Amino acid sequence: MIHIKAHERIDDIQRNGYKLIQNPTEFCFGIDAVLLSHFVSGIKLNSKILDIGTGTGIIPLLIYAIHQKGNYLGIEIQENMAEMATRTMLLNNVENNIFIKCLDIKNFKENFKQESFDIIVSNPPYMKALTGLKNKNLGKSIARHEIACTLEDIIKASYFILKEKGQLFLIHRANRLVDILNMMRQYKIEPKQIRMIYPKITKSPTMVLVRGVKGAGYDLFIDKPLIVYNEDNTYTNEIYDIYQKEKIF
Amino acid sequence: MIHIKAHERIDDIQRNGYKLIQNPTEFCFGIDAVLLSHFVSGIKLNSKILDIGTGTGIIPLLIYAIHQKGNYLGIEIQENMAEMATRTMLLNNVENNIFIKCLDIKNFKENFKQESFDIIVSNPPYMKALTGLKNKNLGKSIARHEIACTLEDIIKASYFILKEKGQLFLIHRANRLVDILNMMRQYKIEPKQIRMIYPKITKSPTMVLVRGVKGAGYDLFIDKPLIVYNEDNTYTNEIYDIYQKEKIF
Repeated sequence: MIHIKAHERIDDIQRNGYKLIQNPTEFCFGIDAVLLSHFVSGIKLNSKILDIGTGTGIIPLLIYAIHQKGNYLGIEIQENMAEMATRTMLLNNVENNIFIKCLDIKNFKENFKQESFDIIVSNPPYMKALTGLKNKNLGKSIARHEIACTLEDIIKASYFILKEKGQLFLIHRANRLVDILNMMRQYKIEPKQIRMIYPKITKSPTMVLVRGVKGAGYDLFIDKPLIVYNEDNTYTNEIYDIYQKEKIF
Repeated sequence: MIHIKAHERIDDIQRNGYKLIQNPTEFCFGIDAVLLSHFVSGIKLNSKILDIGTGTGIIPLLIYAIHQKGNYLGIEIQENMAEMATRTMLLNNVENNIFIKCLDIKNFKENFKQESFDIIVSNPPYMKALTGLKNKNLGKSIARHEIACTLEDIIKASYFILKEKGQLFLIHRANRLVDILNMMRQYKIEPKQIRMIYPKITKSPTMVLVRGVKGAGYDLFIDKPLIVYNEDNTYTNEIYDIYQKEKIF
């Protein structure tokens, strides 16, 4: 029996009957985690997949739910979140497929073997440490602002941890695109694919999905636009397809 | 009377009655020159605007036709093209507003005063010198391949020629986006705005419009998508608006 603490709730992710423990007073996952999970590709039976800043563990749980293969490690700097994500994996009996560890990605050299993972995913904090209104809740602030870890921390660690030709999948705010593409190339994880996420066809994109490949040559593929809402505020067919499968919104 | 040579034709650009001399056996302008001209903003009465690789001179002619202000210089490495563009300006009586010079942008230090222009535009050769099938016609090859000048040549020269906070407007192939954003930041012309050009809403973008500002801070704005065709292969309203105004397609 898995213990559920005060303020926690259990959400059904509607895939394989998997359940997710969340605490609404802390950071809960959003559409970005779902879109990132669906963007990840190239998972093989023995792939080693790392999620940096896993929070509730939604990303490895969802990717594993979709692909039903691969060996996952979710790392999380906040001990209470890592403990909750660990209980989520026990609750779903996937604790042998998805490991959760509480550690700081900045200490990657002490915690990881060089070139040991095939795939890294991350839905990192979007805002610079000193910008925007910080949340009074420290946990939410850590999830949203670059307090505990910056984009550069993630990319630098990824270069060390990824195997040659290993892939890094990120979702981030569209206004950080130059930073992302520059840093990835700087750390020799060449951006090979990006997809812009537009709230509507008549709007600026809010987020961007990026796939980089360690040690790859220069040549970027940009996907067709991912559009969330139709003009009448209903979801587009593509989002509706994800919803139908997931029913987690 | 302006002399029209063998193989040349005169096209009406349908704005202010301006005409453009083109030679169909050489490189003729396309939709990219038109979209770039419409993307340019911030032209003031005394703005100094430079078009690098002006070809027929379509870009300064179109921007001047739209804004009816600013002082333009179009530079072109190919002498026959520069001479033809010069005749186009005489034909339209805009030779005091738009100057054409035959020179190589790589010699920018000999030809330009530092920080002397407000705006630089360029529709550069899209393909790397060694990629793709080169055209048997050298003139067309120079317009399409990075033979006479590379993206880096343009950005490096732009940093020297632009005033502080001056703007660089480029159109390029979408697959070169990482190169463009990296090089611009490297040469301290920060990318501030990009717009993806999708042939259709269901397709990958083929081209991208980029605006950089010399010496600006980091923060990118991405526009709503520019979509060329509807699903039924008719032009979208936005393109149709440009067509209607221009009627040059």
